[in-house]
Amino acid sequence: MRQWTLDIALDRTRAQPLYLQLAGALADAVRQGRLKIGAPLPGTRVLATHLGVNRNTVVAAYAELVAEGVLCTRNGGGTFVAEAMPTPLRPRAIDIAIPTYSLPPETQSSLPIGVLSPGMLTLAGGMPDARLFPARALSRAFHRALDRRGRALVTHADPCGHVCLREQLAAMLTRTRGLTVSADNLLVTHSIEQAIDLSARALIAPGDAVAVEAWGYPPAWNALRLAGARLLPVRIDENGLDVDALEHLLVQQRLRAVFLTPHHQFPTAVVMAPERRARLGELAMRHRFVIFEDDYDHEFHYQGKPVLPIAAGSGRANVVYLGSLANLLAPGMHTAFVTAPMAAFRRIAALRAASDPRTDAAVECAIAELFEDGELERHLRRACRLYRSRRDALAEALCRQLGSALEFRVPEGGLALWARADQTIDLPAWIRAGQIEGICFSDARRFDFQQNDASTLRLGYGFHDEIELAEAVRRMARALKSTLHRRDQARAAA
Amino acid sequence: MRQWTLDIALDRTRAQPLYLQLAGALADAVRQGRLKIGAPLPGTRVLATHLGVNRNTVVAAYAELVAEGVLCTRNGGGTFVAEAMPTPLRPRAIDIAIPTYSLPPETQSSLPIGVLSPGMLTLAGGMPDARLFPARALSRAFHRALDRRGRALVTHADPCGHVCLREQLAAMLTRTRGLTVSADNLLVTHSIEQAIDLSARALIAPGDAVAVEAWGYPPAWNALRLAGARLLPVRIDENGLDVDALEHLLVQQRLRAVFLTPHHQFPTAVVMAPERRARLGELAMRHRFVIFEDDYDHEFHYQGKPVLPIAAGSGRANVVYLGSLANLLAPGMHTAFVTAPMAAFRRIAALRAASDPRTDAAVECAIAELFEDGELERHLRRACRLYRSRRDALAEALCRQLGSALEFRVPEGGLALWARADQTIDLPAWIRAGQIEGICFSDARRFDFQQNDASTLRLGYGFHDEIELAEAVRRMARALKSTLHRRDQARAAA
Repeated sequence: MRQWTLDIALDRTRAQPLYLQLAGALADAVRQGRLKIGAPLPGTRVLATHLGVNRNTVVAAYAELVAEGVLCTRNGGGTFVAEAMPTPLRPRAIDIAIPTYSLPPETQSSLPIGVLSPGMLTLAGGMPDARLFPARALSRAFHRALDRRGRALVTHADPCGHVCLREQLAAMLTRTRGLTVSADNLLVTHSIEQAIDLSARALIAPGDAVAVEAWGYPPAWNALRLAGARLLPVRIDENGLDVDALEHLLVQQRLRAVFLTPHHQFPTAVVMAPERRARLGELAMRHRFVIFEDDYDHEFHYQGKPVLPIAAGSGRANVVYLGSLANLLAPGMHTAFVTAPMAAFRRIAALRAASDPRTDAAVECAIAELFEDGELERHLRRACRLYRSRRDALAEALCRQLGSALEFRVPEGGLALWARADQTIDLPAWIRAGQIEGICFSDARRFDFQQNDASTLRLGYGFHDEIELAEAVRRMARALKSTLHRRDQARAAA
Repeated sequence: MRQWTLDIALDRTRAQPLYLQLAGALADAVRQGRLKIGAPLPGTRVLATHLGVNRNTVVAAYAELVAEGVLCTRNGGGTFVAEAMPTPLRPRAIDIAIPTYSLPPETQSSLPIGVLSPGMLTLAGGMPDARLFPARALSRAFHRALDRRGRALVTHADPCGHVCLREQLAAMLTRTRGLTVSADNLLVTHSIEQAIDLSARALIAPGDAVAVEAWGYPPAWNALRLAGARLLPVRIDENGLDVDALEHLLVQQRLRAVFLTPHHQFPTAVVMAPERRARLGELAMRHRFVIFEDDYDHEFHYQGKPVLPIAAGSGRANVVYLGSLANLLAPGMHTAFVTAPMAAFRRIAALRAASDPRTDAAVECAIAELFEDGELERHLRRACRLYRSRRDALAEALCRQLGSALEFRVPEGGLALWARADQTIDLPAWIRAGQIEGICFSDARRFDFQQNDASTLRLGYGFHDEIELAEAVRRMARALKSTLHRRDQARAAA
């Protein structure tokens, strides 16, 4: 044990997973000086035996602290307390705060998230795990941005966003998504909603007809309606937007635009087939409508060959390409973006300059620095690896614990799984029983343009780790059991 | 000299003022360890004699470094190297970058600011001095915000802005401006333009008539026009908006709203008389129009008794009160705000939630912390003191150097002085000659609703210090002389 005699109390009854309890205790020891800088940590096998836990728990705790910069590994082997440990760690409680990101405003208040007890788990929304957020790296980059570029940074603001961030984003989009984009036709916005709002206001006139997917993101619909759009839903299937149905619609009437999320369709997570993308691009040129392509969660793709955005292969079609790194970083952190052919782009940029010209250059430079030094790419690789195995863990647990109650396909990407409940199950009753069992999930009716279909679910697997996800599904199973039991009782009484 | 033998080379031919050269050299010495932490600095008189400069130069250099936290003073007297000197200082070059804040987008490109040589001075725009920005304090607060509140901060975003910042802003507005406002009816926006854009979109229908001041802020007009407003200019005089003229207009036609900047009128800096404010409130109730009160540069007021905003004394009139701390902090830093009676506020907040719901909670919490620990108030007091003496320095230099060429009143507040050029002077020729002499200023025609009046100037005194201002006016005087000389030559030739 190399003179290492720390007492670590792990509590199996707590909602917090053991590996996070252990990581928290180790970080405390480093902060309090009980573990000195450079000190070697015991081998994972030794510590696991000493604490009476699975060795994987220790491995996971060490990995967490290495990712945080508290510990480091050396080439010769072994784990050590890292050199720089500049700031105290906050207690590593599980964070149940719910972001606005994947939840349309109107449903937030209807979800009892605000009163969740600390042990409550949630599968609602396709939220990222905020615990993975590289807060320390960002904080350091922000400091450097203010310090290095000094006052020039806070004096001047480019309405399109700081050129450093635009260049980094453009390079990333060119490299990973095959787009022809530079800092000159890329605009950074505060949020994906602002990107949609600006694009819609710039390109849609009141009364214009705009086709949307029959399942979609209500905040996007709201922004389009604010611009005066008349929305027409088009059905989707397992290959994404039904282009035949769209063509049929075009026979009946002129469309100004089509808004869609082809990559990981929101909320169903289906990937639009390449041949459909190509046909949509042709239709757009023939019928002269705008394609608003919201490339939702593009960065989280786990399998299958990568499908390029419509904007990358659409020739001369007028594609306004929108995206956001909010799920990779954090909501509100100036990482949404728009790019478009020059004529459309100029209108959008002029609207931005007229309606909200100030950007936060310091934060933008800080994010640009995270790009530049590879921090964001490392973070993305790590997040993808984790989310992929969480997806698999959720899918496996659902199969094992819920059997035929849910029907679903394992999604190729994104942070949520789309499922349909067995028609004989009273879904609202199941959801209410879940609340009692300590698991929050909800039906996806609000994402249905007609607000009709009440038998679908969108289960997010990004927010919790595997251990938490397994517990979440156990609670779903208990809630289902009590729901079915009450149903059978009611039938027997009738 | 207490063993103090630093060699400091000051260069009188450089554009940078001596006191900033000295401050930069001292900061370098601290950073390089030639001056140790806690070491006493020589008395100002001794150092001034040693360097052959005016004692005030040394006093100013010390004051600058104390404000920056590089030096500190002690109760017993004397100046010392401060304990914490965590980050290297960037070279203290004069920053000529031009913010977007006071310049409407369309005029920016017409000003040759982008190609200014480093020695160029500018009186264009009413810009703050970015050198005063408390960058280090903000950077520390940002770090603490991410660290303390941790990931909750980056997970959840309130579309109205983080409650911490809203509470601080509401308390400040209640205390210093007599408003009845709380976090519940205060919305933080990215920029004053976004505040105007949201308010206009929420409360104005296309075709609505909106009265504006005949001299004003073109970005505000742009935002109102984007919402479909038909703008009607109303004359202003030395007491602000001419309410008689407004009443006359109301006889002819219904108004949906009046947009004005009553406190330090933009661009003329006149303060609207209290009795006019009261009458405007009465008219608003009688004729049921909305007052958009943009309380421009409220925080920079130097003399006369403080005049409360219209929103503070308007009874039940529908006043949408807008403001920004951008000139106190920095453009784009989430410090613009809107408050309004609840019915109007709810519409504006709903529009914000629909069009741009993500806010940057980390930066907002950092700014809230600057409020909380008094940093912002100290910064404001210091900035007010400096800007007041800069105003006086500019006014005095203009009187002394330019005589009757300019007619102006010393403004009670704000960051710019409003002047009218003698009708016999060819103002465009003077401005062009100024470019050659190294001074950038421009006429104020773009702020005239009719774009007619070409004999007015708006001279900003916030951006440069007294020494720079004196030099700027000397250059204006030289430019004027050469302009008059050429005019006389041309006359003689004719």
